Amino acid sequence: MRLTTLRTPAGTVAVRQDGDTYTEIDGFADVAELLRDPEWKARAAAAAGATHPVDGAELASVVTTPGKIVCVGLNYRKHILEMGRDLPQYPTLFSKYPETLIGPNDEIELPAEDEAIDWEAELAVIVGKSGRRIPQEEAAGHIAGYSICNDISMRTWQFRTKEWLQGKNWEKSTPLGPVLVTGDEWTPGGTIRTVLDGKVMQEASTGDLLFDPEFLVSYVSTMITLNPGDVIITGTPGGVGRARTPEVYITDGQTVETSIEGIGTLRNRAVATVSATV
Amino acid sequence: MRLTTLRTPAGTVAVRQDGDTYTEIDGFADVAELLRDPEWKARAAAAAGATHPVDGAELASVVTTPGKIVCVGLNYRKHILEMGRDLPQYPTLFSKYPETLIGPNDEIELPAEDEAIDWEAELAVIVGKSGRRIPQEEAAGHIAGYSICNDISMRTWQFRTKEWLQGKNWEKSTPLGPVLVTGDEWTPGGTIRTVLDGKVMQEASTGDLLFDPEFLVSYVSTMITLNPGDVIITGTPGGVGRARTPEVYITDGQTVETSIEGIGTLRNRAVATVSATV
Repeated sequence: MRLTTLRTPAGTVAVRQDGDTYTEIDGFADVAELLRDPEWKARAAAAAGATHPVDGAELASVVTTPGKIVCVGLNYRKHILEMGRDLPQYPTLFSKYPETLIGPNDEIELPAEDEAIDWEAELAVIVGKSGRRIPQEEAAGHIAGYSICNDISMRTWQFRTKEWLQGKNWEKSTPLGPVLVTGDEWTPGGTIRTVLDGKVMQEASTGDLLFDPEFLVSYVSTMITLNPGDVIITGTPGGVGRARTPEVYITDGQTVETSIEGIGTLRNRAVATVSATV
Repeated sequence: MRLTTLRTPAGTVAVRQDGDTYTEIDGFADVAELLRDPEWKARAAAAAGATHPVDGAELASVVTTPGKIVCVGLNYRKHILEMGRDLPQYPTLFSKYPETLIGPNDEIELPAEDEAIDWEAELAVIVGKSGRRIPQEEAAGHIAGYSICNDISMRTWQFRTKEWLQGKNWEKSTPLGPVLVTGDEWTPGGTIRTVLDGKVMQEASTGDLLFDPEFLVSYVSTMITLNPGDVIITGTPGGVGRARTPEVYITDGQTVETSIEGIGTLRNRAVATVSATV
């Protein structure tokens, strides 16, 4: 099943996608709210609300009200090894605030305060069932499904200090979507790719994750309860702009396409914003 | 004015404290919800709901529904200098998820997964008015008031990787309260102190902050909109357990008292939890 969050004149609504049609799942303003209903899967499958053609529809981020967004650093085995590093024993974790999120076709805001704005294609895991200290072998049952995120990073701010938060939390910078594909219909293995103005910048297999979705659900939930609608973005493969010689960054008017085989594509135009109170 | 969040049999409610009495501010489940009403100050001042004696009342964290908790690293000038470091040019920022919060007298959960559990007394700034790219000279108008936090830190997990998140985000670990003192009645300058089982462990002046509340509000809001109920915890002075020789950590049954002159005291017993699904 493919679920997402549609913008309508009356506000956002969770929808099920069947081919080229979205069907409203009445009563749920976004997919996170839907997932908080323990019967979400049956409700989504049975939904028979208003329909909308996929073509021309305007999508919000697949979840608009996540309780938590947990982000993973270095996590693609091949990329870590080619950088000459040892494989880490533990995942590196940081976080994003929900105000960073944008829809799968929205504009990425390039702030005037940083000129080194980079892409990071990532597989997003969306939690469907609460749990604390979830054993790895039960983790699949806590995953609602998978989506795509581009963890757009403001590199100058990111490396002002050792903690990455301030490079990862710029408002309206982070596309998430276009759909959640439920875990019974998708598993890691397909290709993940970033294309900048038609040029392939990242290309790897989501099967190359060192810490896989089940491990990450178990690990994060050791610390803190994972709740429905929470998102874990699982790290990016090689090919980011900062690791290139010379470095390459996103500039005003460019289009960033982020795709994962079997899920879909985010297509976001980058637009410079003025540095003023908004 | 002193505001906080009271637990009642019907749920939590925002209250105003006058001496030894709490008065309910009807219609607001916590101080964050109250602050989201642009007329919060007038509403709180005029509130005449049910009253409760302070003595014996049970408080929740002063805000229970913060949109964001932004945490600051190294920020006490004297402590940075005595450690032989240069004063940093930028604040180090990381974050906590709301599930970490507990009330000012609740038990701190000591997880079985880490034995190096440390204290970090901090001044908390609570946002009262939305803003993006807030100029420093206007920042005071965006601060509702001040509170106290102890950023309890699981040091082994904190230093598993370079990013601190996983040492700072254990469920039910972080007391916040006991009240918000509005900005017209409190400014930095008073003593901040941590006392562990009667022994003073940290003692400094909140006037020694390198990056003061107005600077931090301006800096964080450069990246992202600050909203009412958001919390910035401003870093801890010297005297943490990890910096001692030998290192000292919190153990089962100890009491951590965290106080700031003019605001109050958090008094939390630490209790070992078993490592099991809860």
